[in-house]
Amino acid sequence: MKEVPSDAVTPSHILMLRSGMIRKLASGIYEWLPLGKKALNRVEKVIRDLHDVEGCLEVLLPALLPKSLWEQTGRWGEYGAELMRLKDRQGREFCLAPTHEEAITELAGNYIKSYKDLPKTFYQIQTKYRDEIRPRFGVMRAREFIMKDAYSFDADEQGAGLSYDRMFALYKKICAALSLEAVPVIAKTGLIGGTKSHEFMAPSDEGEEELVYCGCGWGANQELAYSKISSVKEEPLPLEEVSTPGVRTVEEVSAFLKLPAEKFIKTLIYRTADGFACVLVRGDHSADPAKLRSIIGDDARLADEKEIEEITGGPLGFSGPVGLKIKAYADNTIKYGCNMVSGANKKDAHIKNINCPRDFQAEFMNIRTVKAGDPCPECGKPLVVARGIEIGHTFYLGTKYSEKLKASFTDKAGKDLPIVMGCYGIGVSRIVAALISQNHDDKGIIWPRGMAPYQIEIIAASSTGPAMEKAEEIYKALAEKYEVLFDDRDVSAGIKFKDADLIGIPVRIVLGPRGMKTGECEIQSRADGKTEAVKLDKLLEKISDFT
Amino acid sequence: MKEVPSDAVTPSHILMLRSGMIRKLASGIYEWLPLGKKALNRVEKVIRDLHDVEGCLEVLLPALLPKSLWEQTGRWGEYGAELMRLKDRQGREFCLAPTHEEAITELAGNYIKSYKDLPKTFYQIQTKYRDEIRPRFGVMRAREFIMKDAYSFDADEQGAGLSYDRMFALYKKICAALSLEAVPVIAKTGLIGGTKSHEFMAPSDEGEEELVYCGCGWGANQELAYSKISSVKEEPLPLEEVSTPGVRTVEEVSAFLKLPAEKFIKTLIYRTADGFACVLVRGDHSADPAKLRSIIGDDARLADEKEIEEITGGPLGFSGPVGLKIKAYADNTIKYGCNMVSGANKKDAHIKNINCPRDFQAEFMNIRTVKAGDPCPECGKPLVVARGIEIGHTFYLGTKYSEKLKASFTDKAGKDLPIVMGCYGIGVSRIVAALISQNHDDKGIIWPRGMAPYQIEIIAASSTGPAMEKAEEIYKALAEKYEVLFDDRDVSAGIKFKDADLIGIPVRIVLGPRGMKTGECEIQSRADGKTEAVKLDKLLEKISDFT
Repeated sequence: MKEVPSDAVTPSHILMLRSGMIRKLASGIYEWLPLGKKALNRVEKVIRDLHDVEGCLEVLLPALLPKSLWEQTGRWGEYGAELMRLKDRQGREFCLAPTHEEAITELAGNYIKSYKDLPKTFYQIQTKYRDEIRPRFGVMRAREFIMKDAYSFDADEQGAGLSYDRMFALYKKICAALSLEAVPVIAKTGLIGGTKSHEFMAPSDEGEEELVYCGCGWGANQELAYSKISSVKEEPLPLEEVSTPGVRTVEEVSAFLKLPAEKFIKTLIYRTADGFACVLVRGDHSADPAKLRSIIGDDARLADEKEIEEITGGPLGFSGPVGLKIKAYADNTIKYGCNMVSGANKKDAHIKNINCPRDFQAEFMNIRTVKAGDPCPECGKPLVVARGIEIGHTFYLGTKYSEKLKASFTDKAGKDLPIVMGCYGIGVSRIVAALISQNHDDKGIIWPRGMAPYQIEIIAASSTGPAMEKAEEIYKALAEKYEVLFDDRDVSAGIKFKDADLIGIPVRIVLGPRGMKTGECEIQSRADGKTEAVKLDKLLEKISDFT
Repeated sequence: MKEVPSDAVTPSHILMLRSGMIRKLASGIYEWLPLGKKALNRVEKVIRDLHDVEGCLEVLLPALLPKSLWEQTGRWGEYGAELMRLKDRQGREFCLAPTHEEAITELAGNYIKSYKDLPKTFYQIQTKYRDEIRPRFGVMRAREFIMKDAYSFDADEQGAGLSYDRMFALYKKICAALSLEAVPVIAKTGLIGGTKSHEFMAPSDEGEEELVYCGCGWGANQELAYSKISSVKEEPLPLEEVSTPGVRTVEEVSAFLKLPAEKFIKTLIYRTADGFACVLVRGDHSADPAKLRSIIGDDARLADEKEIEEITGGPLGFSGPVGLKIKAYADNTIKYGCNMVSGANKKDAHIKNINCPRDFQAEFMNIRTVKAGDPCPECGKPLVVARGIEIGHTFYLGTKYSEKLKASFTDKAGKDLPIVMGCYGIGVSRIVAALISQNHDDKGIIWPRGMAPYQIEIIAASSTGPAMEKAEEIYKALAEKYEVLFDDRDVSAGIKFKDADLIGIPVRIVLGPRGMKTGECEIQSRADGKTEAVKLDKLLEKISDFT
C-alpha cells in the first residue's frame, strides 16, 4: 500500500498496512493478508508448542456464549457497552466473548469431580471480541482479535500459586522464543478480578501504558509503581508561619525560602463526588493521573479559585494541610519527610516545619508518578520508565468464578470445595504488531529470524534473462529446506529492493547481471545490511550460516 | 460421559460426547475438549498443508462483516434468519459471516489491478456462524463451526475453469490424505450461486442427503441425479380406452392389464401457487420430493379428491395426461416410452398406447428418484445410492460477485473486466464427525492412523507397581518420537480397556503382571484387534511397524 490512511500513526500500524500484512475492513476490524497471516501463524505456533510442552491442554470454546452464563457472575451487567451482544432467531441472548472465565469454569466444574482430577490447565487460541470505544493502532487495539487464554484449576491456594508461577515462567519462555522483549510488571486486575496480577509489557514507544522496571526483575505499571523511600533524619522543629508575598508555586516559594523542592508539600484541592478532598504530594513530585483516579474517582476535578477560598480560607497557591478540615490523601513519601513547607491557607503566607502526624492527619497512599532514576523498591538501583505494549496478563483468581459458577471438587476428606483458579492471556494478533514496533527502521520491518513470514527472499535484478532463470532455479532448490519468497514480479530492481526492505525478510539473495558473469550472487542481511558475495555452487552450503 | 443426552442420536455425535471430544454449551454451540481439539488440529493441518502446496495463499478475514458489504450483493436480505446480526455500540449493523464471498471479493478487488496479478487463490480456516433453524447431530450441523473456504480469481472463464478443476483435484487429494471416503457429486448452487457446483459427500448412514454415484466417477445428489434412459423400440399403436372397473393403483392396473409397471404413466395432480399442475412419472418410478419442490414450488400440495374431479373430470386413481388441460411436467424417461398406459380421466377407465408428443404435451424434466442399480448415465453400470454427509462444496461463480462488488482488472488490451471467480468450502469441524461416522464399531471410535488424536496409547493393567513404572518409562521413551497417550488414572484395567476402545487410538501397548515376569508387553491394533507379544527391549524397534 503506497498511501497509508491518516488514522495510521504508529510505526507498526503503518508498516503492517504498507507491507500488505493487514487491511482495515471497518473500525477495529482487520483482514489478515497472506504475509500477515504467515507471521500470525508463526506466533501461534510458538505459543501452542510451548503450552503443549508445559502440559497445558488445548481446548476451543465458542465465541458465542449464552447470557445466562454471564449473568451468573454478574458480568453481563458489569461489562457494559464493550460486550457485543446479539439475539438468535429464537430471541435468546448471547454475547461475543471478550474472555472465557465463565465458560471454562462452567466446563471444568462439570468434568472435575475429585482432587485426583487436579491440577489442570486448559488453554485455547481463539478469536475474541471487544467493542472498544476507541479502536486504534491497527491490530494493536482491535474489536475482533486473537488471544491465547489459559485457565488453571487447583485444589488449594498453594497449588494455585504454583500454577501461577509456572504460567508466569512459561510466559517469560514464550516471550524469549518469540524474540520479543517483554517485562513482567505488577498490574491491576480490572474486570477480570482476582488478587494478584502481572502484565507482560513489551517496551515500545508505541505503548499506551507507562511501565516502571528495574534490571533486578522488579516492575510495575505506572498506575501501581512506587520507589524506595528514604526517611529524612532531622529533629522536628516547631511550626512557623512565614510571609511569602506574591509567591505561589513550588518553584517560586522554593527560591524565595531557599529550600529544596522536596521539602515542600503540594496541596491540591479536588471537587469529588462526595464533596471536597485534598491530595498531598511532595514539591518535587507530581500526582499520577491514573493513581489519582482510583483514589478520588473518575469524575473528580480540581477545585476552582472560589471553591478553594471557601474550603481553605485562603486564595489559590496558598493551600496547605495544616488546619484543613477536608479529607486528605497524602503520598507515602510525605510520611517520611520532616520539617516540610506548605501554604498557610491565607494570602501571602506559608508554614514551615510541618510534621505529620503532629500537624495534620492524612491517609497515606501511593499517589506520585515514579520517574526514571528513582530508586528501585527492591534493590535501590535506578528505575527505568518506558512506554510499553501489554502483550500478556496473568491473574491469580482464587475462587471468584468457581464459587459463583459452583465449580467444586471433593477433597481427600470428602469435603466439597471450590476449585482455586488462575487465568492467563496473551494477545496473539497484538504480538505481531509488538514485534514490528520493536524491530523496524526507516525503510521497514526487520523481522527477528524465527518470526519472519519467510526465512529467505530471492531477488533477480532483472525480470527476465539468465539472472531470473537462475533465481528461479535457486528458489526451487532452497524451497525444499527453507520458507522462501521469490520476488518474480515484472518490476524494476529498485522497486524489488525497496519492497524487500519494507517487508523485512531477514536474509536476501540477490542475483545481478554482473554476478551472472562471475558465477556469483550476494547474500544480504536485513538487520545489519551486511553483504557477502558467494559462488553460486556454494550457495546452498553457505546459506545455512545466515538462517 | 456416561449418559448421553437424548438429542444425540447419530453414532458420531454419541461417540464424540461419550469420549469427551466435545460438549454442548447451547443449541448448536459446542466446546471442543482436549481430545476433540487434537483431532480438529490434525484435520486443519492436512487441509492447510495441501492448500499451501497447491500455491493457495492463506488469509484470515473477520467474522464480523459490515451490513453495507452484504447489501451490495443483496444477500443481507436473501439470507433471512440464518444470518446472525448485531449492532455495535455506535448502532452500526454487522453480521457474523456464514461465508465470505463479499469480503474476499471486495478485498481482491482492492489489490488486483492487472491481468498480471491473476490468477490467485486465497483460503482461510476460520469460524463461521449460521443460525440453523434446527441445529442437530452435534458438530455436524452446528451454529458456530469451522470452515476452510477458498476463493479463486481469474482473468477469464477458461482460467476460472482451470482453477475450478485444480481445486476439485485438490479436494480429492485432501479427502485421501484425511483417510476420508468421499464422492464428488453434481450439486445445486443454492444461496452461493454460480453456474457449476460439486458437493464432496462422505458416504455414511448418518448423512442427511442421498447421493447417487458410480465407480466410473460420475455422481450427483439425488436432487439432481438421473440415470441412463433406453428408448423403447416399438411401433406406436392407436389410442385405446379400456375398462378397468375398480382398479386404481399402478399395481392393480398392471396386474389387471397384464402389462409391466414401466408401461404406465403415474399422473399426480398438484395444487400450486399458480393453480394446478400435473406431474408424470413412469409406473415403476417415484417422483423425488426435492426435485418436485424445485419444479412446482415449496408450497405445492397434492390435489384433493374434489379438486381432481373438477380438474380431470374423473375420480382419484383414473387421472391421465391425455386431454388434460393443465400444465404437465413429465419425467424424461416418459419421453422415451412407447404405447404407455394411464388413466382416462373418467371412472373405471384407462387409456392404452399413449405416445408423446402425439397424445399429450408436457415439459420434460428430471423428476424421478434414481434407485440403486439404475444404469449410470456415463458408463451404464449399476449406480450406487447411499446417504452422505456433505463435507465439501465447490462452486464456479463466474462474475456474480465481482460485478456487484466492482472487482475488476485491466486486461492486456487495457480493458476493464470483472474478475472471474470460484469458491470452495470444506467443513473442517464436520469432517471430524464424518471421520468417526465412517470409522467406528459398537465399542467406539476406530481412528484412521494419520488422523487419531494420539498415535499410541499405553495402558498398565494395574495402577501401581512395576507394570505402572515400566509403562511410565516406555511413555517417556516413546513420547520423543510419537504422540502418546498414557492412561495413568487410578482406575481398574477394565475401565482403561473400555475407554481405550471408546476413544479409538490405533495402537495400544498393554503392560500386564504376566508380561512383567516374562519381560514382554502386548501391542494391540484397535482396527482389527490383532495382538502381538513383544519383548520390552524390542518395543521401540517393533512399534514402528504398527504406526
